[in-house]
Amino acid sequence: MAKVVTLGEIMLRLSTPGQERIVQADEFDVNYGGGEANVAVSLSNYGDEAWFISKVPEHEVGQAAINELRKFGVHTEAVARGGKRLGIYFLETGASMRPSKVIYDRANSSISEARVSDFHFDRVFKGADWFHFTGITPALGKNAQAITLAALKSAKKHGVTVSCDLNFRAKLWTSEEAQVVMNSYMPYVDYVIGNEEDAEKCLGFKPEGTDVNTGKLSIDGYKKMFQDMVKKYNFKGAACSLRESHSATHNGWSALLYTDGKFFQSKHYEINPIIDRVGGGDSFAAGLIYGLLHLDPQQAIDFAVAASALKHTIPGDLNHESLKEVMDLMGGDASGRVKR
Amino acid sequence: MAKVVTLGEIMLRLSTPGQERIVQADEFDVNYGGGEANVAVSLSNYGDEAWFISKVPEHEVGQAAINELRKFGVHTEAVARGGKRLGIYFLETGASMRPSKVIYDRANSSISEARVSDFHFDRVFKGADWFHFTGITPALGKNAQAITLAALKSAKKHGVTVSCDLNFRAKLWTSEEAQVVMNSYMPYVDYVIGNEEDAEKCLGFKPEGTDVNTGKLSIDGYKKMFQDMVKKYNFKGAACSLRESHSATHNGWSALLYTDGKFFQSKHYEINPIIDRVGGGDSFAAGLIYGLLHLDPQQAIDFAVAASALKHTIPGDLNHESLKEVMDLMGGDASGRVKR
Amino acid sequence: MAKVVTLGEIMLRLSTPGQERIVQADEFDVNYGGGEANVAVSLSNYGDEAWFISKVPEHEVGQAAINELRKFGVHTEAVARGGKRLGIYFLETGASMRPSKVIYDRANSSISEARVSDFHFDRVFKGADWFHFTGITPALGKNAQAITLAALKSAKKHGVTVSCDLNFRAKLWTSEEAQVVMNSYMPYVDYVIGNEEDAEKCLGFKPEGTDVNTGKLSIDGYKKMFQDMVKKYNFKGAACSLRESHSATHNGWSALLYTDGKFFQSKHYEINPIIDRVGGGDSFAAGLIYGLLHLDPQQAIDFAVAASALKHTIPGDLNHESLKEVMDLMGGDASGRVKR
Amino acid sequence: MAKVVTLGEIMLRLSTPGQERIVQADEFDVNYGGGEANVAVSLSNYGDEAWFISKVPEHEVGQAAINELRKFGVHTEAVARGGKRLGIYFLETGASMRPSKVIYDRANSSISEARVSDFHFDRVFKGADWFHFTGITPALGKNAQAITLAALKSAKKHGVTVSCDLNFRAKLWTSEEAQVVMNSYMPYVDYVIGNEEDAEKCLGFKPEGTDVNTGKLSIDGYKKMFQDMVKKYNFKGAACSLRESHSATHNGWSALLYTDGKFFQSKHYEINPIIDRVGGGDSFAAGLIYGLLHLDPQQAIDFAVAASALKHTIPGDLNHESLKEVMDLMGGDASGRVKR
Amino acid sequence: MAKVVTLGEIMLRLSTPGQERIVQADEFDVNYGGGEANVAVSLSNYGDEAWFISKVPEHEVGQAAINELRKFGVHTEAVARGGKRLGIYFLETGASMRPSKVIYDRANSSISEARVSDFHFDRVFKGADWFHFTGITPALGKNAQAITLAALKSAKKHGVTVSCDLNFRAKLWTSEEAQVVMNSYMPYVDYVIGNEEDAEKCLGFKPEGTDVNTGKLSIDGYKKMFQDMVKKYNFKGAACSLRESHSATHNGWSALLYTDGKFFQSKHYEINPIIDRVGGGDSFAAGLIYGLLHLDPQQAIDFAVAASALKHTIPGDLNHESLKEVMDLMGGDASGRVKR
Amino acid sequence: MAKVVTLGEIMLRLSTPGQERIVQADEFDVNYGGGEANVAVSLSNYGDEAWFISKVPEHEVGQAAINELRKFGVHTEAVARGGKRLGIYFLETGASMRPSKVIYDRANSSISEARVSDFHFDRVFKGADWFHFTGITPALGKNAQAITLAALKSAKKHGVTVSCDLNFRAKLWTSEEAQVVMNSYMPYVDYVIGNEEDAEKCLGFKPEGTDVNTGKLSIDGYKKMFQDMVKKYNFKGAACSLRESHSATHNGWSALLYTDGKFFQSKHYEINPIIDRVGGGDSFAAGLIYGLLHLDPQQAIDFAVAASALKHTIPGDLNHESLKEVMDLMGGDASGRVKR
Repeated sequence: MAKVVTLGEIMLRLSTPGQERIVQADEFDVNYGGGEANVAVSLSNYGDEAWFISKVPEHEVGQAAINELRKFGVHTEAVARGGKRLGIYFLETGASMRPSKVIYDRANSSISEARVSDFHFDRVFKGADWFHFTGITPALGKNAQAITLAALKSAKKHGVTVSCDLNFRAKLWTSEEAQVVMNSYMPYVDYVIGNEEDAEKCLGFKPEGTDVNTGKLSIDGYKKMFQDMVKKYNFKGAACSLRESHSATHNGWSALLYTDGKFFQSKHYEINPIIDRVGGGDSFAAGLIYGLLHLDPQQAIDFAVAASALKHTIPGDLNHESLKEVMDLMGGDASGRVKR
Repeated sequence: MAKVVTLGEIMLRLSTPGQERIVQADEFDVNYGGGEANVAVSLSNYGDEAWFISKVPEHEVGQAAINELRKFGVHTEAVARGGKRLGIYFLETGASMRPSKVIYDRANSSISEARVSDFHFDRVFKGADWFHFTGITPALGKNAQAITLAALKSAKKHGVTVSCDLNFRAKLWTSEEAQVVMNSYMPYVDYVIGNEEDAEKCLGFKPEGTDVNTGKLSIDGYKKMFQDMVKKYNFKGAACSLRESHSATHNGWSALLYTDGKFFQSKHYEINPIIDRVGGGDSFAAGLIYGLLHLDPQQAIDFAVAASALKHTIPGDLNHESLKEVMDLMGGDASGRVKR
Repeated sequence: MAKVVTLGEIMLRLSTPGQERIVQADEFDVNYGGGEANVAVSLSNYGDEAWFISKVPEHEVGQAAINELRKFGVHTEAVARGGKRLGIYFLETGASMRPSKVIYDRANSSISEARVSDFHFDRVFKGADWFHFTGITPALGKNAQAITLAALKSAKKHGVTVSCDLNFRAKLWTSEEAQVVMNSYMPYVDYVIGNEEDAEKCLGFKPEGTDVNTGKLSIDGYKKMFQDMVKKYNFKGAACSLRESHSATHNGWSALLYTDGKFFQSKHYEINPIIDRVGGGDSFAAGLIYGLLHLDPQQAIDFAVAASALKHTIPGDLNHESLKEVMDLMGGDASGRVKR
Repeated sequence: MAKVVTLGEIMLRLSTPGQERIVQADEFDVNYGGGEANVAVSLSNYGDEAWFISKVPEHEVGQAAINELRKFGVHTEAVARGGKRLGIYFLETGASMRPSKVIYDRANSSISEARVSDFHFDRVFKGADWFHFTGITPALGKNAQAITLAALKSAKKHGVTVSCDLNFRAKLWTSEEAQVVMNSYMPYVDYVIGNEEDAEKCLGFKPEGTDVNTGKLSIDGYKKMFQDMVKKYNFKGAACSLRESHSATHNGWSALLYTDGKFFQSKHYEINPIIDRVGGGDSFAAGLIYGLLHLDPQQAIDFAVAASALKHTIPGDLNHESLKEVMDLMGGDASGRVKR
Repeated sequence: MAKVVTLGEIMLRLSTPGQERIVQADEFDVNYGGGEANVAVSLSNYGDEAWFISKVPEHEVGQAAINELRKFGVHTEAVARGGKRLGIYFLETGASMRPSKVIYDRANSSISEARVSDFHFDRVFKGADWFHFTGITPALGKNAQAITLAALKSAKKHGVTVSCDLNFRAKLWTSEEAQVVMNSYMPYVDYVIGNEEDAEKCLGFKPEGTDVNTGKLSIDGYKKMFQDMVKKYNFKGAACSLRESHSATHNGWSALLYTDGKFFQSKHYEINPIIDRVGGGDSFAAGLIYGLLHLDPQQAIDFAVAASALKHTIPGDLNHESLKEVMDLMGGDASGRVKR
Repeated sequence: MAKVVTLGEIMLRLSTPGQERIVQADEFDVNYGGGEANVAVSLSNYGDEAWFISKVPEHEVGQAAINELRKFGVHTEAVARGGKRLGIYFLETGASMRPSKVIYDRANSSISEARVSDFHFDRVFKGADWFHFTGITPALGKNAQAITLAALKSAKKHGVTVSCDLNFRAKLWTSEEAQVVMNSYMPYVDYVIGNEEDAEKCLGFKPEGTDVNTGKLSIDGYKKMFQDMVKKYNFKGAACSLRESHSATHNGWSALLYTDGKFFQSKHYEINPIIDRVGGGDSFAAGLIYGLLHLDPQQAIDFAVAASALKHTIPGDLNHESLKEVMDLMGGDASGRVKR
């Protein structure tokens, strides 16, 4: 059992039932999630001790976000309370050629306006094994950038392994801003996760021969990119998921890990139908962290891609699946036969 | 058929189903409403031509707010589009001694950051008969105060009768701020609506012998207050609803109108159970406007109180009831016998 | 265990969830019911053998109506299949001073256009103990009047006791039409059920001193009316429920039976809140039939009023309650204490 | 922005949730729609000024139908009120090899019994650019045939372009009846839409080599049919969608337009899964009208087929999609990647 | 119309809505079902007279199970009442590579603790044509084994044809126990249904070359197994469905029947998407029984596989489909085109 | 912040939506609760550190029970895993004169078959301030009696204050059995909670002049009973809630505490409507424990009765309310005015 810490924003997710569009909705399904919170929940479900650091409002909506994390065993003692609001995002789930759509309403959230003094990082990182953050948090603004940096420093002080999911978000900052900030964090990072777009926009790297819109993927381009990144930043490893977007409900899914100078490519899954695509990347990151903590590299990338393939079949941001279920799928049973 | 214009904020209302608390909610019922929008819908339902002025975001949530108004025949051509977000409020509905609870998440809404140049008031007020606004709009900030003032000037230029529901909101501004701004608007106002708290906090008036917490009401205190207000501001009339809060589900309900130097007291209703209390005051204002436009003063206050009593039995902010239904209740049939 | 036969129309009921109004509805709750079908279900629930005679379309909506009856043990072998449509009614449930509202869409239903030859009455009435019909069926038109008459003749031929719930429906026929038809049926009737309005509109009787709108009831007026009716038609008995309509959610409820030259007045209940008022009268008729078949007159009227009081607390037209539950309430336990 | 007028019936649609069958349903989802109303909503969503002409009952169910149209900006001032009922259809949604099933309950609807004098066509068609009707409306009976003819004459008088979606419905009339009536309308028609069955049953045409049950389509047969139709009736154009029915949840989808003596074939889409097939044809007609009004012929047929492909992914009859969304899909992005 | 009797357990099924996992569920969908009850409902839907024998508790949950059967016309007069509880199973529905999951909570159910004296088999089997049971019932324990044997003896006494669906359930008993008991029943059985696993675990047979996990099926292996079984037990026939498990939502589906010394292989269907997989085997057994009673062997196996293919598209355990629908699919229309 | 430990059974609660009866239910609302778990959740909500001891199955339904407790901050580290099943109870909520109904299906639950060795009481009670149990746990059987006794001994060893809610359940054991066991526990108990029936059935005491069915309460009888109990068992205090059952939806509510030789009577509340009566007694116990830990006796009983009055307005077993909300109600604001 490892102690894993994540830091970031948790939001209220308001999604339309079924495939309804927002203009049709008479009710919204209520979920709470966010990249780093999703990672914490996954790891808690696998049996690790997961801690989430954030700040949420005092009121009941903030409390509900904390409750959702506690429900799955995540430690929330390090979540500060206060500030103005919980970030919100609206989601409508697509089908076939109609893409899912996300509308963000996350400005001025408590975490985006928090201060370093809201947190006691040394208490949390003491005894921790792993720290995970994403490029979304620093994109929230100067305050969040300072908090991220303080967390990174504390993590390093306590000898904690650090992973970063680059996760470039064009609606939150520009590539120029991102490159300045993210490059300053890389010295603290051991493992980086990112697809071609993230690597380009956050760090200036780009795989050749890949077109995100067509779903055409060049493994060779990725390999070259990972080697360059590891050389430049001295990472212990780099990884990404490889998504082939056939439609909103049908994706190909596999992944690539580069570590110890070797490439490890995962099994490949056809996910059809996709039940909920949101949180798919986070479940991959969580699976990878679990794998790197407890398994060998080939198993790690297979665990990560199996875990995240399963996530695509589960409603909500959070990845409600057990260690055994991921292991079973990794072990080869993708037949979907009833378990009874 | 009269043309009535209202100006204000329309919000997304997220309420828990039944009597669930926010920490229990897995889904939120979706409604759209706001004081002035609610008034416009009521009047459209009674057959008047209702216009609503506001600003909402370009995205689908903003569109859904407009659609809800159009659904009930309100003219939305004067609603500007743009800005950052639609204001939100969370609602849990109480029962018995547990009060309903509202959490506002309305800062930085499109209307609160709109500018006078977003609107073409003269086009809207041309041919209009009535303009209604509330104290909530100027409480949104300097921009909204300027917009309200511009609307008042345009209304007066076109000879439009003006009503104001004082509606003091302590979470939005202080009594000191309110008194400066609201007093500056009073010269444009013909009819004022407000309970004892509103009158005190917005204008500095207070009825004697009333205790809002106990539900004890002093009609004499109100009468004195109304006479003083009319004298000071030269209003054509002043009115308020008189709510006796027995519990979250049981209220007494009546109203008082002072106009032409005379007092008109309405019938009294016991509302038990209350289905949805929110929008009750707005339905009273709408009923009063309808009454003052089409009926005599005694009928007007009876119409207003019957209309708003009915509203308490209808879910959502909006008052879905027909002219005939209000007239039937005014006419004395409160037996609730099945109509078939 | 007695064999009881009822004849009439079963409709698809489309009701808005909770207290929503029809213009707010995004879904309708689906129920199937109708006066005589409701009586059959009640009696089947009490343990009698209940048969329902009607005609419904071949299609799945017709089948669903039959299935609902079979679900509660009612014999549907005598329900003819064919014709154009199943009658529909829309229901919105009121609250406090807002009445429930029914919109009928029942014209051209299969039963209204059925023919006597669709039915084999002698097969059904053989061995039967009781036949119940209401004034709604003949109000459906000439075809239904002929069917009703044929059923009455067959019932009498087999020595079956006959009860009639007058149930005048102003939207279906005039009082003039009703009086011609209903008077022609009375020679076949043993027990008549009707409130003051029914008696007046269907048969020309009226209790003195009663005002249906105020809920003011004159027991003496009723007694006089019953005596006159029994004298004129030679009924074995006459009964009615006495509803005091305080509001849509709060009624007083009791009943009166006149038989063997004596009056039997039931206990009185305050029903607050009413969950579903529709089918209340039918559950009274069913309770009375059960009582007259199996109990003495005082018990019969007490059973009928207890059964129908309980019905007001159950959603849908159908009265889902056991013999024991009615007996318990009759026996005096109206405290509503949890049964566990 | 063009002014487009449509005429026809709007119905209450009662559909079972998910893939439930009618005999399982405890609630029905409520939608309002009909071929011509669906076209009006689509065009309003794309930014045109859409008017719908019909007649609906005075009661709340009729009002709800109007409200649904107003919600999406359709002008309903020309909808007459009165008559007996709103037509209804029941829908259960199929899956895999189980087809969706529709049960009509639309006889005696207000529009089917309306009269020409209920409408003021000249007011509506003044300034209009386009009039669209379908073969369903005249199939409702003599009254509706006279109304359609009156509308066509008024449209022509005002120089309005006319399109007709043949839409043969075997449950409403015979091919013989249809051919008499529809042929009498063709002189008023500029653009005709119809698949092979419609063309045969309404006008007597038939493409060779097509089998509607196997989904086998002969483009050459269609081309020949279109040329013959245009020659005979002097149409400006003829079009149809080409559906390949692999299963209830998976269709191939493309379309063909013949105009100005040239054939324009659209892109082809695999729609899998289909969320709601109903209204697919109407969204094609609406897309085509939009295309013919604002784009060149190749763009027009591509727009029409993209718009209607998207419709298959949206619940309900109405096509809730924006101009931009159709343009994006036309532009080639069918990857279904999340928009955020 | 044949009289068919089935014997077994009916359970309360609690399933999560949509694809939710059990830890996410705030509500469970309520269904009632069980292998033999499902067969009875199917046959009643096809028009046969179906009887179900079981024992359920006196309380309302037991009553609800009976009501569900009555709703679809199944005779429940032979269901004994009493005992401690109704068996329960929890179901979450999978998707793509995530399998559906069943949790049984069925120990100590009324039927598992019933006694032979609870039933009057001779009354039920008098005039019966067919008796169907499964290997699940004897797996419930000694009492249920004795009841099954008593039923078999009574069935034989009345010359009733007997079918057995082997249905081995590893959670209920061991293969050793099963073989002792099931072998003792085989002399009473005319038709046996079972896949390779059932045949092996219950009777000791095994087809060669089949791997249940990969979905690889060897027809030749099955044929050999069936010939051996028929030779050993002198069955009139043996059959099984052949499921290819591509994923939880996509299966291939066909079947094989061996009777009169000949093999009959059915059509093959691709079922995609699967809506509800539970009850698929029971609908196959019911279809086969119907076919063997009313059709020739090739039609029988085609009917069985078409019926059960359709079942996979219907929510719940029960197979709500008409004889005509199965016949239409058998006849070749798997296009899923809307029926209207 | 105090550390409070409770021990008992947590069950899956399956309740019908709204006021539906079980035979009508197509879905059950899912909640988890049980007397002692409910107390733990209440105290955690008030800010104390609450621990719950029990045993639940390994499977997902057991996990969901744990998750529900964790969600509200209760420590579940001492909950053992294993055994056969989670106890279940079915609930239908009454209205007016129809009582709520509970059907237990709790036999053979994991906790009822647990052993003392499943628990490490000394670890949990170390540092604890309070231990609470109820008479329900020993009623589960010999195993549970031994566990309760072991817990009591451990609690006493660590100097923990002990409270017992007698809670006699006639369906689980007889009064004779109860008196033997419960009397053997009393030496370990500091505070006892129980109404007249509990005291009689568990300990042999009875207040005079009280009739639980009529709701007639004799305060004097209770006082005498409490004095006798305290004298006999040397309790620090005894308390009970005083419920007046006017109907299933309307109760009077107050309470009495006897401690330090003095009587403390609480305020009295009329609860109308009751939203959910289940868990009302547990919320009283929790409120009393909180009060005795942190307040003076009069405040303690006022806090307890206010807390539990509020509980009656909240759906589910668990009491989702904050310390501030109880304090506000205690402070006198029962007006139910909207909080915004």
